[in-house]
Amino acid sequence: MAVETIRWVGGLEGCVELIDQTRLPGEFTYIRCETPREMWEAIRVLKVRGAPAIGIAGAMGLVLGMRHSQAQSFDEFAGELLEVKDYLAGSRPTAVNLFWALDRVERAAREQSGLPLPELKLILLEEALRIAEEDRDICRRIGRNGAELLRDGDTVLTHCNAGGLATADYGTALAVLFAAVEQGKRVSAYADETRPLLQGARLTTWELKQAGIPVTLICDSAAAHVMCEGRVNAVIVGADRIAANGDTANKIGTYGLSVLAREHAVPFYVAAPVSTFDLSLDHGGQIPIEQRAPEEVTQWGDRVIAPEGIEVYNPAFDVTPAANITAIVTENGVIHEPDVEKIARVVGGTGAGRAG
Amino acid sequence: MAVETIRWVGGLEGCVELIDQTRLPGEFTYIRCETPREMWEAIRVLKVRGAPAIGIAGAMGLVLGMRHSQAQSFDEFAGELLEVKDYLAGSRPTAVNLFWALDRVERAAREQSGLPLPELKLILLEEALRIAEEDRDICRRIGRNGAELLRDGDTVLTHCNAGGLATADYGTALAVLFAAVEQGKRVSAYADETRPLLQGARLTTWELKQAGIPVTLICDSAAAHVMCEGRVNAVIVGADRIAANGDTANKIGTYGLSVLAREHAVPFYVAAPVSTFDLSLDHGGQIPIEQRAPEEVTQWGDRVIAPEGIEVYNPAFDVTPAANITAIVTENGVIHEPDVEKIARVVGGTGAGRAG
Repeated sequence: MAVETIRWVGGLEGCVELIDQTRLPGEFTYIRCETPREMWEAIRVLKVRGAPAIGIAGAMGLVLGMRHSQAQSFDEFAGELLEVKDYLAGSRPTAVNLFWALDRVERAAREQSGLPLPELKLILLEEALRIAEEDRDICRRIGRNGAELLRDGDTVLTHCNAGGLATADYGTALAVLFAAVEQGKRVSAYADETRPLLQGARLTTWELKQAGIPVTLICDSAAAHVMCEGRVNAVIVGADRIAANGDTANKIGTYGLSVLAREHAVPFYVAAPVSTFDLSLDHGGQIPIEQRAPEEVTQWGDRVIAPEGIEVYNPAFDVTPAANITAIVTENGVIHEPDVEKIARVVGGTGAGRAG
Repeated sequence: MAVETIRWVGGLEGCVELIDQTRLPGEFTYIRCETPREMWEAIRVLKVRGAPAIGIAGAMGLVLGMRHSQAQSFDEFAGELLEVKDYLAGSRPTAVNLFWALDRVERAAREQSGLPLPELKLILLEEALRIAEEDRDICRRIGRNGAELLRDGDTVLTHCNAGGLATADYGTALAVLFAAVEQGKRVSAYADETRPLLQGARLTTWELKQAGIPVTLICDSAAAHVMCEGRVNAVIVGADRIAANGDTANKIGTYGLSVLAREHAVPFYVAAPVSTFDLSLDHGGQIPIEQRAPEEVTQWGDRVIAPEGIEVYNPAFDVTPAANITAIVTENGVIHEPDVEKIARVVGGTGAGRAG
């Protein structure tokens, strides 16, 4: 990806610019966020989305909320910071990278609690920029590690968007494809459209097309037929939170794909940075599943596509059991047949987790 | 259902009226078809849809095409009839009820080949009306037979629309729910929205709501999660064509649901009239799968939701192997664990099939 999903412009008095992903692929525009409230809204309505990108957005949102602080002591400053942090953490309940990034910024401040206020604020900004910068490096390492799993000529099915638009600029699941192509392999893709918000149809096809990777769009419900016809050699998806045992929360529909992949003997890969692991959770049953508005399903812009007042069940995520996952690709290496021990070895003390 | 999906109005000089299902649930309107071309178009763009309803529409379309015939002999008449029949058969390639109904009307004419032209035309109309009338009776028998499979308090997941709107007026899969309620059982439903044309969101929810049956709309990709949470006790779907061994073509997504149902030990039922069986086909691999326009996936009314020129794979149907089907519910009885012998016993010489 040649485009930056999210960036801080200027110094402490600058602002955040991010691609408004709700307008893609029709319109490619950056919007500005100058307050935590604007950032909360941008995360909530998915102008910025994808677990790693949400982490970066959260960290930058925390800087926006603290840069005008008039606190008279570090304790007062830390109290204000906790408030802004909690507020931003409430924008999306499932993506653990958000909490992880907010914690990192808070920790950076606490480690420098003796500094005068202006310098402390700069520490926050530096940490947010570092998270974004590290993400670029992490995604490239995920790509390189994952590309080893693909052979020349492979076709990959992916769900939702775990591309550059879901990270600083290179992606997780799609990074594997980008890196494979950089290694000289010919690969192509099927993209699930990913109802209700069509991240696959709108974003994944757009990114892959820009990268020159052949992509075919399908309805989510066609994935089983596509696998049955032998059209794909692998499924690769991103993740919003991974428990200590490898159970993985990702966009609704991922769990079903994992069952179908097993049925058709297609390997099922999850690509995610270690910041997506939440080692404070033993298993996926403990991951909170965000429920979203019925209107995402019943409306299309202004047009209503279901009878008025109809009951809707609209979970944003589901949980794929580790047993259905062939391997998890991280920046630290590939975890084959993931379990508690293997994950602990690769993720170690570096994973996320509200406890840690 | 208190509404008629399709009806012939008046005598031989009358016309066909049918609910324009592309406008539901926003608008409830009947449109008129006066020529085979108008009927072909109505079938093609899914103003009328659902295997049994397409059969009725095809039969009535054949009458529309022959009622002004000036043929001087039966042979000439039969030649014209074959032309109109082939034309109408080309509107949808997968639903076998269409060919079955067209064959029935042709056979009725051949059996009365000695009659004068005006009477012969009336024979066609009578046969088309008989098909519609029989469908009403058949659907009620399917409903009664299937309702035995449901217990009080059951929740059923269904896909696409196999309701009254897919038949003359009572449905196949939904007939099972209607009949269960008539027997005093409390049942409720989850309806897959059914991309790309949203028959579930637009039609199934509308029908069930009208019938007072509690229904919850979900995205297709949420079905696995819903099953995993133990929310449904059965899956019931319709069918567009069933091979001699029980392999079943139905709306894209059905096959995936059958795999998921097996994974979660949820019984998977197909409800269809015997006219849906095509005993000339040994197995599902021989069923032609209709490919539909990319625009069904990439456009929403005027709005484009995917990058321009993107490749799309849009099969309208998939094939569920008999091994994944717990039972097929027909008007002649329930076929548990369907196979060639059991199907032959129940369907006998009465099934469809272009050969027969």
